[in-house]
Amino acid sequence: MKFVAEINVMPKKELLDPQGKAVKMGLKHLHIDNVKDVRIGKHIVLTLEAASSQEAREIVDNACQKLLANVIMEDYSFEIRELQESLKQ
Amino acid sequence: MKFVAEINVMPKKELLDPQGKAVKMGLKHLHIDNVKDVRIGKHIVLTLEAASSQEAREIVDNACQKLLANVIMEDYSFEIRELQESLKQ
Repeated sequence: MKFVAEINVMPKKELLDPQGKAVKMGLKHLHIDNVKDVRIGKHIVLTLEAASSQEAREIVDNACQKLLANVIMEDYSFEIRELQESLKQ
Repeated sequence: MKFVAEINVMPKKELLDPQGKAVKMGLKHLHIDNVKDVRIGKHIVLTLEAASSQEAREIVDNACQKLLANVIMEDYSFEIRELQESLKQ
Protein backbone atom coordinates (compact mmCIF):
# COMPACT_ATOMS: atom_id res chain seq x y z
CA MET A 1 0.00 0.00 0.00
CA LYS A 2 1.15 3.56 -0.75
CA PHE A 3 0.87 6.34 1.82
CA VAL A 4 1.58 10.09 1.91
CA ALA A 5 2.81 11.66 5.14
CA GLU A 6 2.55 15.44 5.70
CA ILE A 7 5.06 16.35 8.43
CA ASN A 8 5.52 19.67 10.20
CA VAL A 9 8.78 20.26 12.06
CA MET A 10 8.73 23.45 14.16
CA PRO A 11 11.18 25.07 16.59
CA LYS A 12 10.15 24.36 20.20
CA LYS A 13 7.92 27.15 21.50
CA GLU A 14 10.34 28.18 24.26
CA LEU A 15 13.19 28.73 21.79
CA LEU A 16 13.93 32.05 20.03
CA ASP A 17 12.96 31.99 16.34
CA PRO A 18 15.29 34.53 14.65
CA GLN A 19 13.99 33.56 11.21
CA GLY A 20 10.45 34.28 12.37
CA LYS A 21 11.51 37.64 13.82
CA ALA A 22 13.23 38.60 10.53
CA VAL A 23 10.12 37.74 8.49
CA LYS A 24 7.92 39.70 10.91
CA MET A 25 10.15 42.75 10.33
CA GLY A 26 9.96 42.16 6.59
CA LEU A 27 6.17 42.10 6.69
CA LYS A 28 6.19 45.38 8.64
CA HIS A 29 8.30 46.99 5.91
CA LEU A 30 5.64 45.88 3.44
CA HIS A 31 3.05 47.62 5.64
CA ILE A 32 1.51 44.28 6.65
CA ASP A 33 1.22 45.34 10.27
CA ASN A 34 -1.45 43.10 11.74
CA VAL A 35 0.88 40.10 12.04
CA LYS A 36 1.71 39.64 15.76
CA ASP A 37 3.93 36.56 15.59
CA VAL A 38 5.69 34.49 12.93
CA ARG A 39 7.13 30.99 13.46
CA ILE A 40 8.91 29.17 10.66
CA GLY A 41 9.66 25.45 10.32
CA LYS A 42 9.79 22.69 7.72
CA HIS A 43 6.94 21.04 5.87
CA ILE A 44 8.02 17.63 4.58
CA VAL A 45 5.92 15.40 2.32
CA LEU A 46 6.96 11.72 2.20
CA THR A 47 5.57 9.11 -0.20
CA LEU A 48 6.15 5.60 1.18
CA GLU A 49 5.20 1.95 0.88
CA ALA A 50 3.87 0.11 3.94
CA ALA A 51 1.76 -2.91 4.75
CA SER A 52 -0.65 -0.86 6.90
CA SER A 53 -1.24 2.70 8.08
CA GLN A 54 0.11 1.65 11.50
CA GLU A 55 3.37 0.50 9.89
CA ALA A 56 3.46 3.73 7.87
CA ARG A 57 3.13 5.71 11.13
CA GLU A 58 6.05 3.78 12.66
CA ILE A 59 8.25 4.36 9.59
CA VAL A 60 7.50 8.11 9.56
CA ASP A 61 8.04 8.46 13.31
CA ASN A 62 11.34 6.63 13.01
CA ALA A 63 12.40 8.91 10.12
CA CYS A 64 11.51 12.00 12.19
CA GLN A 65 13.36 10.75 15.27
CA LYS A 66 16.52 9.80 13.33
CA LEU A 67 16.80 12.45 10.62
CA LEU A 68 13.96 14.83 9.81
CA ALA A 69 13.72 16.58 13.19
CA ASN A 70 16.31 17.70 15.73
CA VAL A 71 14.31 16.43 18.69
CA ILE A 72 16.31 18.56 21.15
CA MET A 73 15.23 21.85 19.55
CA GLU A 74 12.24 20.93 17.38
CA ASP A 75 8.78 19.41 17.76
CA TYR A 76 7.27 17.35 14.93
CA SER A 77 3.73 16.28 14.04
CA PHE A 78 2.39 14.44 11.02
CA GLU A 79 -0.72 13.21 9.23
CA ILE A 80 -0.82 10.09 7.10
CA ARG A 81 -3.26 9.27 4.31
CA GLU A 82 -3.43 6.32 1.97
CA LEU A 83 -2.68 7.10 -1.66
CA GLN A 84 -5.33 5.56 -3.92
CA GLU A 85 -3.43 3.86 -6.79
CA SER A 86 -5.06 5.05 -10.08
CA LEU A 87 -6.78 2.02 -11.75
CA LYS A 88 -4.58 0.60 -14.51
CA GLN A 89 -6.22 0.29 -18.00
CA MET B 1 -10.30 39.20 16.43
CA LYS B 2 -7.18 37.01 16.57
CA PHE B 3 -6.44 34.37 13.93
CA VAL B 4 -3.76 31.72 13.37
CA ALA B 5 -2.72 30.88 9.83
CA GLU B 6 -0.90 27.60 9.05
CA ILE B 7 0.90 28.08 5.71
CA ASN B 8 2.73 25.48 3.62
CA VAL B 9 5.13 26.72 0.96
CA MET B 10 6.38 23.92 -1.30
CA PRO B 11 8.61 23.81 -4.41
CA LYS B 12 6.49 23.50 -7.57
CA LYS B 13 6.04 19.82 -8.50
CA GLU B 14 7.81 20.17 -11.84
CA LEU B 15 10.97 21.54 -10.21
CA LEU B 16 13.90 19.42 -8.99
CA ASP B 17 14.04 19.19 -5.18
CA PRO B 18 17.73 18.61 -4.35
CA GLN B 19 17.02 18.93 -0.63
CA GLY B 20 14.39 16.21 -0.90
CA LYS B 21 16.78 13.96 -2.85
CA ALA B 22 19.48 14.43 -0.18
CA VAL B 23 17.08 13.52 2.64
CA LYS B 24 15.88 10.46 0.70
CA MET B 25 19.52 9.29 0.43
CA GLY B 26 19.99 9.97 4.14
CA LEU B 27 16.97 7.84 5.01
CA LYS B 28 18.36 5.01 2.85
CA HIS B 29 21.63 5.12 4.81
CA LEU B 30 19.53 4.73 7.96
CA HIS B 31 17.94 1.62 6.34
CA ILE B 32 14.58 3.40 6.04
CA ASP B 33 14.07 2.07 2.52
CA ASN B 34 10.34 2.25 1.96
CA VAL B 35 10.35 6.02 1.34
CA LYS B 36 9.79 6.56 -2.41
CA ASP B 37 9.79 10.36 -2.55
CA VAL B 38 10.65 13.29 -0.26
CA ARG B 39 9.64 16.91 -0.83
CA ILE B 40 10.69 19.64 1.55
CA GLY B 41 9.22 23.11 2.00
CA LYS B 42 8.41 25.66 4.68
CA HIS B 43 5.70 25.54 7.32
CA ILE B 44 4.91 29.05 8.57
CA VAL B 45 2.57 29.85 11.46
CA LEU B 46 1.29 33.45 11.62
CA THR B 47 -0.67 34.98 14.48
CA LEU B 48 -2.57 38.04 13.28
CA GLU B 49 -5.35 40.52 14.10
CA ALA B 50 -8.20 41.00 11.62
CA ALA B 51 -11.80 42.19 11.64
CA SER B 52 -13.04 38.97 9.98
CA SER B 53 -11.76 35.63 8.70
CA GLN B 54 -12.16 36.98 5.17
CA GLU B 55 -9.88 39.91 5.99
CA ALA B 56 -7.45 37.50 7.66
CA ARG B 57 -7.38 35.43 4.43
CA GLU B 58 -6.59 38.54 2.39
CA ILE B 59 -3.77 39.58 4.74
CA VAL B 60 -2.20 36.10 4.66
CA ASP B 61 -2.53 35.81 0.88
CA ASN B 62 -0.92 39.22 0.49
CA ALA B 63 1.94 38.21 2.83
CA CYS B 64 2.50 35.01 0.81
CA GLN B 65 2.44 36.84 -2.52
CA LYS B 66 4.85 39.56 -1.39
CA LEU B 67 7.27 37.79 0.94
CA LEU B 68 6.63 34.29 2.25
CA ALA B 69 6.59 32.45 -1.09
CA ASN B 70 8.62 32.82 -4.28
CA VAL B 71 5.58 32.47 -6.53
CA ILE B 72 7.73 31.66 -9.58
CA MET B 73 9.18 28.51 -8.03
CA GLU B 74 6.88 27.73 -5.10
CA ASP B 75 3.21 26.96 -4.47
CA TYR B 76 1.56 27.99 -1.20
CA SER B 77 -1.58 26.90 0.64
CA PHE B 78 -2.94 27.89 4.03
CA GLU B 79 -5.60 27.26 6.63
CA ILE B 80 -6.94 29.92 8.98
CA ARG B 81 -8.61 29.42 12.34
CA GLU B 82 -9.86 31.91 14.88
CA LEU B 83 -7.91 32.00 18.13
CA GLN B 84 -10.28 31.94 21.12
CA GLU B 85 -9.07 34.65 23.54
CA SER B 86 -8.80 33.02 27.02
CA LEU B 87 -11.51 34.56 29.33
CA LYS B 88 -9.95 37.20 31.61
CA GLN B 89 -10.57 36.76 35.41
